[in-house]
Amino acid sequence: MNFPLSLNTITVKQRWGLAECIEGCARHGISGISPWRDVLQAMGVEAAARQIREAGLTVTGLCRGGMFTAADAAGRAAAIEDNRRAIGEAAAIGARCLVMVCGGLPPGSRDLPGARRMVEDGLHAILPEARAAGVTLALEPLHPMTCADRSVLSTLGQALDLCEALGQDVGVAVDVYHVWWDPDLRRQMQRARGRVAAFHTCDWLVPTTDTVFDRGLPGDGVIDIAGIHGMALEAGWPGGAEVEILSHRWWAQDPDEVLPLLKERHQAFC
Amino acid sequence: MNFPLSLNTITVKQRWGLAECIEGCARHGISGISPWRDVLQAMGVEAAARQIREAGLTVTGLCRGGMFTAADAAGRAAAIEDNRRAIGEAAAIGARCLVMVCGGLPPGSRDLPGARRMVEDGLHAILPEARAAGVTLALEPLHPMTCADRSVLSTLGQALDLCEALGQDVGVAVDVYHVWWDPDLRRQMQRARGRVAAFHTCDWLVPTTDTVFDRGLPGDGVIDIAGIHGMALEAGWPGGAEVEILSHRWWAQDPDEVLPLLKERHQAFC
Repeated sequence: MNFPLSLNTITVKQRWGLAECIEGCARHGISGISPWRDVLQAMGVEAAARQIREAGLTVTGLCRGGMFTAADAAGRAAAIEDNRRAIGEAAAIGARCLVMVCGGLPPGSRDLPGARRMVEDGLHAILPEARAAGVTLALEPLHPMTCADRSVLSTLGQALDLCEALGQDVGVAVDVYHVWWDPDLRRQMQRARGRVAAFHTCDWLVPTTDTVFDRGLPGDGVIDIAGIHGMALEAGWPGGAEVEILSHRWWAQDPDEVLPLLKERHQAFC
Repeated sequence: MNFPLSLNTITVKQRWGLAECIEGCARHGISGISPWRDVLQAMGVEAAARQIREAGLTVTGLCRGGMFTAADAAGRAAAIEDNRRAIGEAAAIGARCLVMVCGGLPPGSRDLPGARRMVEDGLHAILPEARAAGVTLALEPLHPMTCADRSVLSTLGQALDLCEALGQDVGVAVDVYHVWWDPDLRRQMQRARGRVAAFHTCDWLVPTTDTVFDRGLPGDGVIDIAGIHGMALEAGWPGGAEVEILSHRWWAQDPDEVLPLLKERHQAFC
């Protein structure tokens, strides 16, 4: 059985805009797409929604909402407003979820519990709009090495605690890159039953030379992707993955050469 | 109240051997030292033990044992033998503990649970010798970004689970750099009561440009060092810290200029 593959647009961000991504998915037989908001806005939300629909692609997610942490109340309010726009965009393109990257420590702050409270407050603030729009918020725990500057949401367990505080209709985005190391992963994936709203793949390279932009193609690193995908299936995930690779190396390649590789690796590991 | 400061020798590794570290601690009024095995062996264990004793320094730890993971049985047996030698060295210099950095995935492996079993097996194998020598094994969870190549022991909770499996006389080494991000830290530090055998400081820089060698001086980053030191005190740690900074930047400086900075920062945060 082949599980469906989705292209996260950041994987080819230096070469293709969203229109080219949509055409590329169709050309290479990739059935899903997950745009980032910058390429979505550049193309125009309505035009993108139409072209995606015409191409018959599943929108596995919109990347990304979140970034709730800020040094002052005005900054936090602006983040919430921006999340409201993101919810509207996710609804307009029929995205299965809005992926939430929650934000790091505010500049100059060492108050990690305080930053985590800002995230929880921000999620509570936007949840009514998300529900009204029928958009599932997918809380994405990010690797602890991003805690200072990208996400104080660091583990799947922490994301599931937040889900429980927020309600039944909030989910998690499981990216193997962010969770593979977790000694508590199997237990938390069991706990995630019914909550897995997105499943992302790439790989952890040895050595890893950049904390953000040195991800590998599935199979080029040490993550047991098949094993984690299996845990997701057991947790009710229907199967499939969105390949999301932030990598200076792969960004430099021709996407028409990268996409066949993504398909090949995806079939090997999912 | 000033808690004692200890110099981990890797902080000045490109300038000073162990004899110079011992003299430097005495000259700068630093009361503790924690050697790495390479500089200890280069000086000679007996000579080092004598000079440390004559300088009146507390040996807060020996770095490091561990590295139990290997691709084959011969490799794992060799690691255990090397740990036995490390136990002997720790006893010879009167170290309060032998710090255990447990090892990453064996080359070519994606079997993380298997690597974690190798660590547990290795610790069980050397525990009788450690007990006989009166050497406390201090299990050091390392930041998850080191999971592939340095330590599959990734969280304080995981280290404490191992302690419970091993017995009352096994401890943990808490390095703020490795644990600061953990959403479960406060609870696990409470659970660590009576187990904190070493407390290490440095800081997480924003941005962090290298996953191993870009640590900051306490105060130059975002870690709430005072807060974590307070949690250690509540867990029965008598207070004080070993400053351990792996940093190309600081290695390039004159240690006689670095040590006064370490003292100043230590007094500010511990």
